[in-house]
Amino acid sequence: MSQAPSPAPRVLSGIQPSGVLHLGNYFGAIAQHIALQDRYPGEAYYFIADYHALTTLRNPEALRQNVFDAAVTYLALGLDPAKALLFRQSDIPEVHELAWLLACVTGLGLMERSTSYKDKIAQGIKPSAGLFNYPLLMAADILIYDGTLVPVGKDQLQHVEFAQDMATYLNEAYAAGGPPLLVRPEAILGSAPIVPGFDGRKMSKSYGNLLPLFESGKKLRKLVGQIVTDSTPLGQPLNPDTCNVYALLKLLADEAELAQIAEWYRAGARDGQPFGYGHAKMLLADKLDAHFAPARARREHLLQHPDEVEAILRASAERARPIARATIDRCRRAVGLA
Amino acid sequence: MSQAPSPAPRVLSGIQPSGVLHLGNYFGAIAQHIALQDRYPGEAYYFIADYHALTTLRNPEALRQNVFDAAVTYLALGLDPAKALLFRQSDIPEVHELAWLLACVTGLGLMERSTSYKDKIAQGIKPSAGLFNYPLLMAADILIYDGTLVPVGKDQLQHVEFAQDMATYLNEAYAAGGPPLLVRPEAILGSAPIVPGFDGRKMSKSYGNLLPLFESGKKLRKLVGQIVTDSTPLGQPLNPDTCNVYALLKLLADEAELAQIAEWYRAGARDGQPFGYGHAKMLLADKLDAHFAPARARREHLLQHPDEVEAILRASAERARPIARATIDRCRRAVGLA
Repeated sequence: MSQAPSPAPRVLSGIQPSGVLHLGNYFGAIAQHIALQDRYPGEAYYFIADYHALTTLRNPEALRQNVFDAAVTYLALGLDPAKALLFRQSDIPEVHELAWLLACVTGLGLMERSTSYKDKIAQGIKPSAGLFNYPLLMAADILIYDGTLVPVGKDQLQHVEFAQDMATYLNEAYAAGGPPLLVRPEAILGSAPIVPGFDGRKMSKSYGNLLPLFESGKKLRKLVGQIVTDSTPLGQPLNPDTCNVYALLKLLADEAELAQIAEWYRAGARDGQPFGYGHAKMLLADKLDAHFAPARARREHLLQHPDEVEAILRASAERARPIARATIDRCRRAVGLA
Repeated sequence: MSQAPSPAPRVLSGIQPSGVLHLGNYFGAIAQHIALQDRYPGEAYYFIADYHALTTLRNPEALRQNVFDAAVTYLALGLDPAKALLFRQSDIPEVHELAWLLACVTGLGLMERSTSYKDKIAQGIKPSAGLFNYPLLMAADILIYDGTLVPVGKDQLQHVEFAQDMATYLNEAYAAGGPPLLVRPEAILGSAPIVPGFDGRKMSKSYGNLLPLFESGKKLRKLVGQIVTDSTPLGQPLNPDTCNVYALLKLLADEAELAQIAEWYRAGARDGQPFGYGHAKMLLADKLDAHFAPARARREHLLQHPDEVEAILRASAERARPIARATIDRCRRAVGLA
C-alpha cells in the first residue's frame, strides 16, 4: 500500500537564475512569492532552477554567480527563511528520478505540445533534448514536494497543466482506486501587472529594456531618464494612461498619490509650475530609490556574507529533501522498483 | 579542474529483465558476458535495466519478479560476484542526473534518429517520453561507470554510438582542451551465433518461439519435439545445413561430434539403423539437459535462497555507486552546479 501524500496547502515555485533580476521580475513574481510566505508560513517552497538553466547557459562561472545572485535578491527583498524555503534545484537530484517515472507514463504527444519549447526554438535556441524534456523536470519539481499551489504567470500555466496531467497518468497507472501517489497541483494565476521596460514593451531580458532592482542615486536616475516618452513639449497636457513612466509609478504609489500625479499630467502643471516627463521621471526615480532602500541594505550585507546565503540554501534543502525522498520512495514501491 | 576518469578497461552492459530468459539470450549475450568476467576480472559491470523496463511494463509484481529471475539466471549460469558486478539499474539513481546533463548538450535530431525507438513504435508500443528518452538513460548507464567496453549485438550498436556522441558533446562543452569528463566507450561486437527458435526464425520473445534455459527431462523433450523440420521420411538423407535442430546442435557440440552428426544426417542412417529428425531432436535434448544441469542445480539453490541473490545485488551496487558518484561530482562541478 502506498502512503497518501499530505493534502496540506503547499506553495511551490521555481526561480530562474537568469542573471540580473529586474523590476519586471519583482512585480511579476517575486513580490507575490514573498507575500505567499505570510499566507502559508512554513509551506512556501522556492527553488532556484539551476538544472533548467543548463538548457540555455553553458558557462559554469556565470551559472554559479546567477544562482547566488538570485538567492541574494530574494533574501534582500524579504524572503524569510523562517517562513519560506529557498533552495537550489540541484540540491535535490531526486527530481530526475521522478521525471523518469513520469516520462514512462507520459505520451510523446503531450511533450510536443509544450509552448515553452516552441517559444524557445522560435527565439533561436538550439533544440536540445534538455529543452524538450524541460516540462518533465518542471512537473517533477512540483510533484516531488507535494506542491498544491503553484503561482505562475499566464505564459507558464501550461507547465502546471502538464504537472496535473502527469500526476494523473502515474496515479491511474499505479494507484487506481487507492490513495494517489502524487498530489494534483493547482495554479495560482497571479494578477501581476504588466511592467513596461524603457521602450514601452514588456520588461524582459530578451528585449534588453530592463530597470534593475538595486540601482540608486545618479545611476538610477540616468536609467529612468532613458524611459521612452512622446515629444509633447514641457507645460503641455500629458496623457498618463499612455505614459510608460506613469505605468511604472502605478506600481509604487498609492491611489491618492496616483490621482494627484494624474492631475499634474493632465494639467501639464504642478503648483503653478510647468510639469513634464522629466518631472515624472524624477518622481519615479525617487520612489524606486526609497522603495528598495531597505532591500539594497540587506543585499549589501548578504554580498559581504556569502556564507549566510549558502547556509540558508543548505538548510532549506535539508528540509525539502526528506519530502522528496518520501515521494520517490512511495513511487518506487508502487512501480515495482526495489 | 576536473579529475580525469580512469582509462582502465571496464566492461559495461545492461540486462533486460524481460521475463524468462531463453537459449537465444544465452548464446546471444549471457555466455559472452560471463566469458568477459574472466578476461576483465573485477571490471565487468552488469546492471539489470529495471528503469528501462518501466517503458514497457506496468506491472510492479511482474517487474520485481523479472528482475529477480534475471539475477538468478545470470548467477546460475556462472556469473561470479568475485569477478563481475551484478546490480539493479535503479540502485544507482544518479544515472538520471547524468542523463539530464547529457540531454542539455544533445540535439533533438540525434534522439529522433534512434532506431530502437522507431522499432518499438513499429511494434505497436505507445510512443511515450520514456521510450523517446531511453537513449539518454542508456548512454548515462554506460558513461557514469567510466565503461570502456560495451558488448552489444549489431541491433544495439547505435546505443554505443549515441553514448560516444554524448560523451563528446559534454567533453567539448565543458572540458575542451583538458582531461575529458567522460570516457568514450567502444563497442565489442560479439560474434554471437544466430539462434533459431521452434519455427526457424530468430529465437525471440516477440515471436513466442523460445526454448527456455532451465527445462529438463520430459518437458524439455516435449519442447524440443516442437522444433519445425521438413517432412523427409525416416531413413532418407537429410541436409543438416537447412535444419533448425542441427543449427541448435552446433551451439552445444564440438567439431568432431558435429562432423559425426552431419554424416548421420546425410546418410539418413546411424550404425546401420535409420536416422531421422526424431533422433536428432533426442540428441539435442540430451545435450541441452546435460549442458545446463549444473546451472539448474545452482538455480534451484538460489530460488530457495533469495536473500543470497539480494545480498549479491546490494554488494555490487555498493561497489558501483562510488564510481557513479565520482562521475556525477566531476560533471556537476564542471557544468557549474554546487
